[in-house]
Amino acid sequence: MSGEEKPKSHGRLRVSVSAQPRDLMAPQRVKGAWAARIVTLFPEAFPGTLGLSLTGKALDQGLWSLETIDLRPFGIGKHRNVDDTPAGGGAGMVLRADVVAAALDQAAIGTPPDRAAWPVVYLSPRGKPFDQAMARRWAAAEGITLLCGRFEGVDQRVLDHYAIEEVSLGDFVLTGGEIAAQAMIDATVRLLPGVLGNASSTEEESHSHGLLEHPQYTRPAVWEGREIPSVLTSGNHAEVEKWRRTEAERLTRERRPDLWAKRRGP
Amino acid sequence: MSGEEKPKSHGRLRVSVSAQPRDLMAPQRVKGAWAARIVTLFPEAFPGTLGLSLTGKALDQGLWSLETIDLRPFGIGKHRNVDDTPAGGGAGMVLRADVVAAALDQAAIGTPPDRAAWPVVYLSPRGKPFDQAMARRWAAAEGITLLCGRFEGVDQRVLDHYAIEEVSLGDFVLTGGEIAAQAMIDATVRLLPGVLGNASSTEEESHSHGLLEHPQYTRPAVWEGREIPSVLTSGNHAEVEKWRRTEAERLTRERRPDLWAKRRGP
Repeated sequence: MSGEEKPKSHGRLRVSVSAQPRDLMAPQRVKGAWAARIVTLFPEAFPGTLGLSLTGKALDQGLWSLETIDLRPFGIGKHRNVDDTPAGGGAGMVLRADVVAAALDQAAIGTPPDRAAWPVVYLSPRGKPFDQAMARRWAAAEGITLLCGRFEGVDQRVLDHYAIEEVSLGDFVLTGGEIAAQAMIDATVRLLPGVLGNASSTEEESHSHGLLEHPQYTRPAVWEGREIPSVLTSGNHAEVEKWRRTEAERLTRERRPDLWAKRRGP
Repeated sequence: MSGEEKPKSHGRLRVSVSAQPRDLMAPQRVKGAWAARIVTLFPEAFPGTLGLSLTGKALDQGLWSLETIDLRPFGIGKHRNVDDTPAGGGAGMVLRADVVAAALDQAAIGTPPDRAAWPVVYLSPRGKPFDQAMARRWAAAEGITLLCGRFEGVDQRVLDHYAIEEVSLGDFVLTGGEIAAQAMIDATVRLLPGVLGNASSTEEESHSHGLLEHPQYTRPAVWEGREIPSVLTSGNHAEVEKWRRTEAERLTRERRPDLWAKRRGP
């Protein structure tokens, strides 16, 4: 593909599909940068909040790239229909296998076929729950393709045919996959080298040790009659660490017995 | 408050704070409509994806309202600092109790003090995991205030003082609470009366019965040599329901033994 041989490109990169699929150029990747490709009926939802703050700065710096593949132009007929009624009846509409397949073929151009190097994911409440370990796995890949559903779901045959991983943001139902995609990309992008200003931040924080984070305090020393716990202002670093560890363990036991039970190591 | 006596207002409503806190009018609520108030350093993140599709249409129709309260004007000094270094040391910055309190006081104007009628929530990976039951509880309230964190967290004293509920989107770390807020609002708003076109959709779907959703299929009848399961095209509704139930149970057992174990009812 000629797109691969172009000079190295930096900064925000977004391919919006507006022509016939066969006329499209391959989506372009910032060489070496982690890439997210989103197949969606709402490309205007991106970058959204991902364009702000740390993730937005990293996007502008070319530390990662974002491409949307609009599902609509792959639709059938004059009205570019992407969905149809569920076989067997029922409410809602189901995204067609042939339409989704055409968009996924477009999204796959220039990506490695190995699903470990480039996961292909359908965002669905039926999927495996997304967690920090998955974010770490995705951050170690070259990039990811996320298929955002709407309506009642996607024809099962396309999920089977493309060996698509189903991932859920949690045990709740969203109107579509777009916000879920943003959450997962945010969690992944912040783990990429250079994105967080202070590297130690990712190590110390919640879930990195399988414990919830200890309480935090800052100035003023007294607020509404409430003081900062004296150990934190003692200057005794060993005691501070001990207090934080104890509090993190207490909170985890109290709030998340499930996490406490599966905690590894001391 | 004079804002309460104004004529009934419909449609998108968003209060952005740009003056001294004491000069502000109370945020206005569309009477009777469910309201979300977001305390954030990134008000421009909203409505974001919530402004599109079903949630956006419902926002335009006045079925719910969204107000952002910018944390920045409540900051200290010439630079409106909202955060400071953690007591006891460590990476990152902690949001100040006094700054957050001032913004929460602003957000509380005109809202019921009863936390069941109007939950006040801090989005934090330390919190209780958000789920469909919580979305239903929130949808039954008059509205909600969501505090979006950034940096290493919020001074614990403000969480204690305001009896703030900590809620987590899941076991992963985000750069901030804004995307989590959008996910939770999306899940809640779609449960409000009139938001979904087809009311039966909310009942049939994933998690409503504690089961994952059965696979879906639609036209074409054959795709890439794969056929739609014949029972779904048989026209026998009882057999279709039986197949879907069996598939939902199978998927739940295979993918989510945790959900299967705590499933209620038959």
